[in-house]
Amino acid sequence: MDVELLAIGTELLLGQLVDTNTPYVAARLADVGANVFAAHTVGDNKARIAAAMRAALERADGVITTGGLGPTVDDMTRDAACEALGLESVLHQPSVDAMKAMLASMGRPERDLENNLGQAYTPVGSYVLENPNGSAPGFVAFDARGKFVASMPGVPSEMKAMLAERLIPYLRERYDLRERITTAVIHTIGIAEAEIDRRIGDLFATLENPKIAVLAHGYTCDVKVMAKAGSAAGAEALIAPVRAELEGRLEGYVYGRDAETIEGAVQRELLRRGQTIAVAESCTGGRVASGLTAAPGSSAVFVGAVVAYDNAVKRVELDVPPAVLTEHGAVSEETARAMAAGVRARLKTDVGFATTGIAGPGGGSEQKPVGLVWFALALPDGRSVAQKMNFRGDRNAVQTRASIYALGMLWKGLRL
Amino acid sequence: MDVELLAIGTELLLGQLVDTNTPYVAARLADVGANVFAAHTVGDNKARIAAAMRAALERADGVITTGGLGPTVDDMTRDAACEALGLESVLHQPSVDAMKAMLASMGRPERDLENNLGQAYTPVGSYVLENPNGSAPGFVAFDARGKFVASMPGVPSEMKAMLAERLIPYLRERYDLRERITTAVIHTIGIAEAEIDRRIGDLFATLENPKIAVLAHGYTCDVKVMAKAGSAAGAEALIAPVRAELEGRLEGYVYGRDAETIEGAVQRELLRRGQTIAVAESCTGGRVASGLTAAPGSSAVFVGAVVAYDNAVKRVELDVPPAVLTEHGAVSEETARAMAAGVRARLKTDVGFATTGIAGPGGGSEQKPVGLVWFALALPDGRSVAQKMNFRGDRNAVQTRASIYALGMLWKGLRL
Repeated sequence: MDVELLAIGTELLLGQLVDTNTPYVAARLADVGANVFAAHTVGDNKARIAAAMRAALERADGVITTGGLGPTVDDMTRDAACEALGLESVLHQPSVDAMKAMLASMGRPERDLENNLGQAYTPVGSYVLENPNGSAPGFVAFDARGKFVASMPGVPSEMKAMLAERLIPYLRERYDLRERITTAVIHTIGIAEAEIDRRIGDLFATLENPKIAVLAHGYTCDVKVMAKAGSAAGAEALIAPVRAELEGRLEGYVYGRDAETIEGAVQRELLRRGQTIAVAESCTGGRVASGLTAAPGSSAVFVGAVVAYDNAVKRVELDVPPAVLTEHGAVSEETARAMAAGVRARLKTDVGFATTGIAGPGGGSEQKPVGLVWFALALPDGRSVAQKMNFRGDRNAVQTRASIYALGMLWKGLRL
Repeated sequence: MDVELLAIGTELLLGQLVDTNTPYVAARLADVGANVFAAHTVGDNKARIAAAMRAALERADGVITTGGLGPTVDDMTRDAACEALGLESVLHQPSVDAMKAMLASMGRPERDLENNLGQAYTPVGSYVLENPNGSAPGFVAFDARGKFVASMPGVPSEMKAMLAERLIPYLRERYDLRERITTAVIHTIGIAEAEIDRRIGDLFATLENPKIAVLAHGYTCDVKVMAKAGSAAGAEALIAPVRAELEGRLEGYVYGRDAETIEGAVQRELLRRGQTIAVAESCTGGRVASGLTAAPGSSAVFVGAVVAYDNAVKRVELDVPPAVLTEHGAVSEETARAMAAGVRARLKTDVGFATTGIAGPGGGSEQKPVGLVWFALALPDGRSVAQKMNFRGDRNAVQTRASIYALGMLWKGLRL
């Protein structure tokens, strides 16, 4: 079954409200194997809503709408559906009764029904979708070819319940939807999207089920494997060999699967080794510590951190030798190594990690530009590793990117 | 000018990603008085993207797309625009140079350029949109009628900068967009939305230009004042008296205007007093320090922080007396006060601030449930202030809310 989605509401087109209904409906439809090839948003305008419905029905088996079913004059979906399908509307008595009961239960007068009665009309011949969390019904209405317009309220709690309990069961039955899409995710760090493409592009181009997609987020990159199957076991059977192949080709860069995070991967590596960590931060200002404390259970491995913004703190709390600071400067390989070693010794952990750099906008120079960050990792055997990076962007971008990079370097460095 | 928006990406139609680009672009277009009558989403399919572009150009003066400009085979927007407009594509040499410079600055080999070179192609005759936060350009390309397809990357940081600095100025010039909506924002903290409503509800109901809106974000609340005018000066003349009235009614809760942040307000208060600060964090794990180092120039007031996750760190690095920890526990008023005083003394600052609490999911008890957080502020005159809060939600929600609450308490506490 091919469907298109239509979100209705002028506030969506003014950018005053983010449309979370469309991705929600799309995800539930993907779960049952329906194809969503397009989604649209139009304002509270009957002619435009009807035109969007008709255009969608030219391309797909049906269109599923959210919003515009309320009681006010700018709620146009019902009338637009009648216009698009060439149908009259008719009063749905069970919905009138439901509204009466709801008003009574809220202690509101019967005359309030008048303002809401419009909501009880549905296009002739509709399959009515009762509203588990409200009084106004949705509907599935049909054109002469049997193509459908299914309309649900825009209030997320009402829409979600109606979708799950009424519309999805109806569509599964009518369109014999037995297959569903299961998505597995492989998380990578430290490998460019273009390099991933070079390594797995052939699978990308040839595989149909499961399909592969790559999603880049700065220093991390997700590879998604999407399988269509009639059961969870069937999906896993399709996914497993492809995931194994992909993980092989991306070896050394894969830090986790599905809901796993880079901070969780660092924590797991430390737990596996029975090691603890402490962090010394300058330019990242607490963001690496924030990352390491985000995963539940972090207190088992994370002991603490020193944010040494001022050089005096680097000297006094991290025992960075004054000579290192004066000879090499605060942003240098030597200072980074001394900070990592210092925090490891002071907080008595197995591993120490440090960042020092120039987040900007001020403080840069020709030799040490804004965006330069030194990272150092002090390992349990006394060795230390240092790296530098030049990050682009404003202060926030440099701080954020440096913190994610730090977690990636930690994850890789722990396995040295 | 009438435009339609087109978001491109299969992951959007699978519901794996919420499209925040469309509302963002829509809001910026509303600001400059452009009409957005429809928005669409299609997957990474060249024919469908091209068809959506052509259909939009039948209805509007132009279509603005986000996404699908990346370097991989599933990035189809460039080719689709050429197909929709009947144009060839051509290499844009300045973009090639920008990519080379970026690769060099990241220390990546020149051969990586090959994988990215496709991004430097734009439709013949395009107005090229340089990418302030990346290397791949966007473009505005035209059909024979002068209607346009404007394409920007899907990465929000790149899209936002390109929209503000390149596309909007271009469209304002070309379409003579003179009337614009100017939005002034009044930021409050520590006052409930319902109380704001009680204080300003009358203005809310009666004002037309400027209009007022209230937007709650947890512990902070923004009041927006939106004026429609032909010039910035005209807008300011409409806004100024209303803003003054609102700030008067909300006195004591207003920490800033427009782009100002709570962390910036704390920094300003410290600068005004010539005071420095140090922070001791337990459950917030570095998030308060992250907030205090987010604003440019923070090194003038922020000296450093100690993230004391382990109790040993509280004792050794913050001089919290062992008796306080054993008698009252790590999550207590006494420990919070001792941490604040300890970090102030150790880092030799005027002000010390501390958090200690239970972020969960583990570690809670009947007396000290998950979500309980103690805050303490050690002032220059030796006084200290302590407060406790019970935050709802999961670990991430508790950590985030506690950090924002901390900044608000700091801002208020500094003025005691």
